[in-house]
Amino acid sequence: MADKIPSLELNDGNKIPQVGFGLWKVDNPIAADTVYNAIKAGYRLFDGACDYGNEVECGQGVARAIKEGIVKREDLTIVSKLWNSFHDPEQVEPIVRKQLADWGVDYFDIYYIHFPVALKYVPPEMRYPPGWFYDGDSEVQHGSASLESTWKAMEEIKKKGLAKSIGVSNYNGALLLDLFTYASIKPAVLQIEHHPYYVSKHLLTLAKQHGIVVTAYSSMGPQSFIECDMKLAADTPTLFQHPVIQKIAAAHGKTTGQVLLRWSTQRGLAVIPKSTTDERLKENMDVVGWDMTPEEIQEISDLDKNLKFNAPPNYGIPVYCFA
Amino acid sequence: MADKIPSLELNDGNKIPQVGFGLWKVDNPIAADTVYNAIKAGYRLFDGACDYGNEVECGQGVARAIKEGIVKREDLTIVSKLWNSFHDPEQVEPIVRKQLADWGVDYFDIYYIHFPVALKYVPPEMRYPPGWFYDGDSEVQHGSASLESTWKAMEEIKKKGLAKSIGVSNYNGALLLDLFTYASIKPAVLQIEHHPYYVSKHLLTLAKQHGIVVTAYSSMGPQSFIECDMKLAADTPTLFQHPVIQKIAAAHGKTTGQVLLRWSTQRGLAVIPKSTTDERLKENMDVVGWDMTPEEIQEISDLDKNLKFNAPPNYGIPVYCFA
Repeated sequence: MADKIPSLELNDGNKIPQVGFGLWKVDNPIAADTVYNAIKAGYRLFDGACDYGNEVECGQGVARAIKEGIVKREDLTIVSKLWNSFHDPEQVEPIVRKQLADWGVDYFDIYYIHFPVALKYVPPEMRYPPGWFYDGDSEVQHGSASLESTWKAMEEIKKKGLAKSIGVSNYNGALLLDLFTYASIKPAVLQIEHHPYYVSKHLLTLAKQHGIVVTAYSSMGPQSFIECDMKLAADTPTLFQHPVIQKIAAAHGKTTGQVLLRWSTQRGLAVIPKSTTDERLKENMDVVGWDMTPEEIQEISDLDKNLKFNAPPNYGIPVYCFA
Repeated sequence: MADKIPSLELNDGNKIPQVGFGLWKVDNPIAADTVYNAIKAGYRLFDGACDYGNEVECGQGVARAIKEGIVKREDLTIVSKLWNSFHDPEQVEPIVRKQLADWGVDYFDIYYIHFPVALKYVPPEMRYPPGWFYDGDSEVQHGSASLESTWKAMEEIKKKGLAKSIGVSNYNGALLLDLFTYASIKPAVLQIEHHPYYVSKHLLTLAKQHGIVVTAYSSMGPQSFIECDMKLAADTPTLFQHPVIQKIAAAHGKTTGQVLLRWSTQRGLAVIPKSTTDERLKENMDVVGWDMTPEEIQEISDLDKNLKFNAPPNYGIPVYCFA
């Protein structure tokens, strides 16, 4: 199955499988088995983050698969992200090294800035992962590191080989344009929320201009956020039941979830769905190698509402990096 | 009439009238008379920019009004903006001095960064205003100045007294948060597109947290852009004919335009409508001193479509600072 997943070439010479496994909201008790089973099912890209709080367990799943000879380290694309409270340049390398130790690996394939916002440093021994609020404060405490200073530290992470590629997540066009003025190394990957209610046509164009591969998260739209008790998501018509998606799924003998993922991959993005059942694991990999018509792709893109779910205020967190 | 316009206090101790006159799309042949007549009608805030291409003529209107003793320079709030091709730090002061000379004044009350995107420098003697394209190239040529370096140059403009206050225009939340990490002087004013189809609730919250006054442009929504032959604007229902706006206008005995402006001022913003008729000049000033109910304000805010018109791609310009 893994043989069927194409790779996308990055602007730094590395590659990323176009379909991977997203580790957000994978509960700790099942994270090791989930990763192990996904590797057995053929997944090679694992998209994690400090903030997901499960890097130790995910690393255990990887270790078991390697120990059993199912894969080698170099077969895997292991991805992690810099949390907002570690933006101070001097905190970047120490936290990367901690995250590598948690995973039990000595390099990440991709390491992202998770959000374009600096929060006050929280020592890992005080609380980890630190989340948005400093030790239970009622107010978010912002940090003093500029995005430029953090990106320069990210470049050092790549130069030292701690990450083969570096990228940014949740950046908008203006932030990318500003980054291009000060970056010595351009991001190889941009990870963004991406679904038919949030199509981001111009951002994809900008990324393409600069040879930046885009990875889509929350490809199912509101579905990911209903699990987070988000009212906005609950109030938005599900994409699984959307007549346009259902019609196209029926026409191709696919599930609506596969149509949503294929819409992304056919636009050239990588996708990182999550699943904990064998059937769905296989289903989510069958999102390359068959095509919708350009008209169908457009019909799905026309559902755009410029509607982003994954913004902190939607969780009651007063951080306005998406305002 | 001018006595009835309240002022908003800025975080640097200066003030700005809550209602002013926007100089975008004021044609050169009528610009001097337009400004002069607006001053006679009671306007004291004039919102200009290099890019509007009419600063010389606007300055002539001001000079006439001062010469005739209608106002003194210190009665006026004269505003201008740094065009994208002058972001290189060493270009900021020279172009401010040129713009001051064009206006015939020796300081601006407010000087903004117009857009959060740097373009390649165009010498004024080559083309002025330079616009988005370098000397007719088919591709936009970006500049190499970071927004931080440009903001530092803006701070010098304030320190030298060339502008009493400095601000940013068309910045989003993430850009502001980044700016706060490197600014010695916070922006006093943020100017943004703002109308019931683009409500920007969270951005206003962020600005308020930091004591930044917000000035609204294009308060009438699509109307401003229909004049620019923008398809997106033409395809969007006009706000003047919107039943919610019409109903509220009738209830208060005001025009729909006044309701749209009062919705902004009642939210605490300054507004800068444009008009070339005496009747409309007066009408546009009567947008303070009467109140809609909180329910009416909310009903208008509920028209939000998160729909921004003033993005370069909507004019066929491939610049993605709003992606």
